[in-house]
Amino acid sequence: MDYLENIPFDELQEGQTAEYVKTVSADDIKLFAIISGDTNPLHLDEEYAKTTRFGRCIAHGSICGIIVSAAVATKLPGPGAIYAAQEMKFKKPVYPGDTITAKLTLIEKKRKANIILIDCVMTNQHGETVFTGVSTAVAPSEKIRVKVAELPKVTLL
Amino acid sequence: MDYLENIPFDELQEGQTAEYVKTVSADDIKLFAIISGDTNPLHLDEEYAKTTRFGRCIAHGSICGIIVSAAVATKLPGPGAIYAAQEMKFKKPVYPGDTITAKLTLIEKKRKANIILIDCVMTNQHGETVFTGVSTAVAPSEKIRVKVAELPKVTLL
Repeated sequence: MDYLENIPFDELQEGQTAEYVKTVSADDIKLFAIISGDTNPLHLDEEYAKTTRFGRCIAHGSICGIIVSAAVATKLPGPGAIYAAQEMKFKKPVYPGDTITAKLTLIEKKRKANIILIDCVMTNQHGETVFTGVSTAVAPSEKIRVKVAELPKVTLL
Repeated sequence: MDYLENIPFDELQEGQTAEYVKTVSADDIKLFAIISGDTNPLHLDEEYAKTTRFGRCIAHGSICGIIVSAAVATKLPGPGAIYAAQEMKFKKPVYPGDTITAKLTLIEKKRKANIILIDCVMTNQHGETVFTGVSTAVAPSEKIRVKVAELPKVTLL
């Protein structure tokens, strides 16, 4: 059984870092289209994608938005964080099969209301920056350790 | 067969609006956890969620991030848009079963490089604002009409 553990506000330090790695599969992109309703063929139809400036299918840009939120929710500060705001810039396309490394850095701890600002830079397996952004969250006051939720098995037909 | 059609830069007008509606199901939340890797039990384990300030499971905050990106990519301006940046604020939790209406308003057309700014306000079925944000995109120059991609059927076990 896996657990998620947080870093409470008092233990957080400016400059603290964390990493979160995610490989974006072709199935992730299909599921993203299903959840969001964004059925643009650029993300799903290889023949169509060849006719565009990208030359092949790319992931939806906001796949990086869900990676940064998962990184904040599971790593820095982790469970109990309340996600308040996010700024983000999409720098380069993410392709199916790319492995994205999100590096988080705690850039500011505000005295008031446990608010923290977290910088995020994501790079692909070639070292290219694909995303930059800043998250605003309310950090948890208490230590929390929770069992990760069991996930269903997904079949795509 | 359904099609997606865009509004090219020259046809866009400041003040122009569009709507995008999405009902967030419990299965959407499970799929979101699978794609993102955010397996916090707050989103998936009703018993655990009862012990939190929310009282029941809530969607991951950034589900609203993927709704706004889908709205921009399919409605205003639609296919061919290049998603450059997004600012967003999460105002209230989204619960499984909530129907979210995203209202987009084109707030600025820059002369340079076809850049447009799009404001988004999302409300739930009770009329409460759950999300506000501003998208930055490069609008397409040409009229585009594309077949929507066929999506696989998903089974969760």
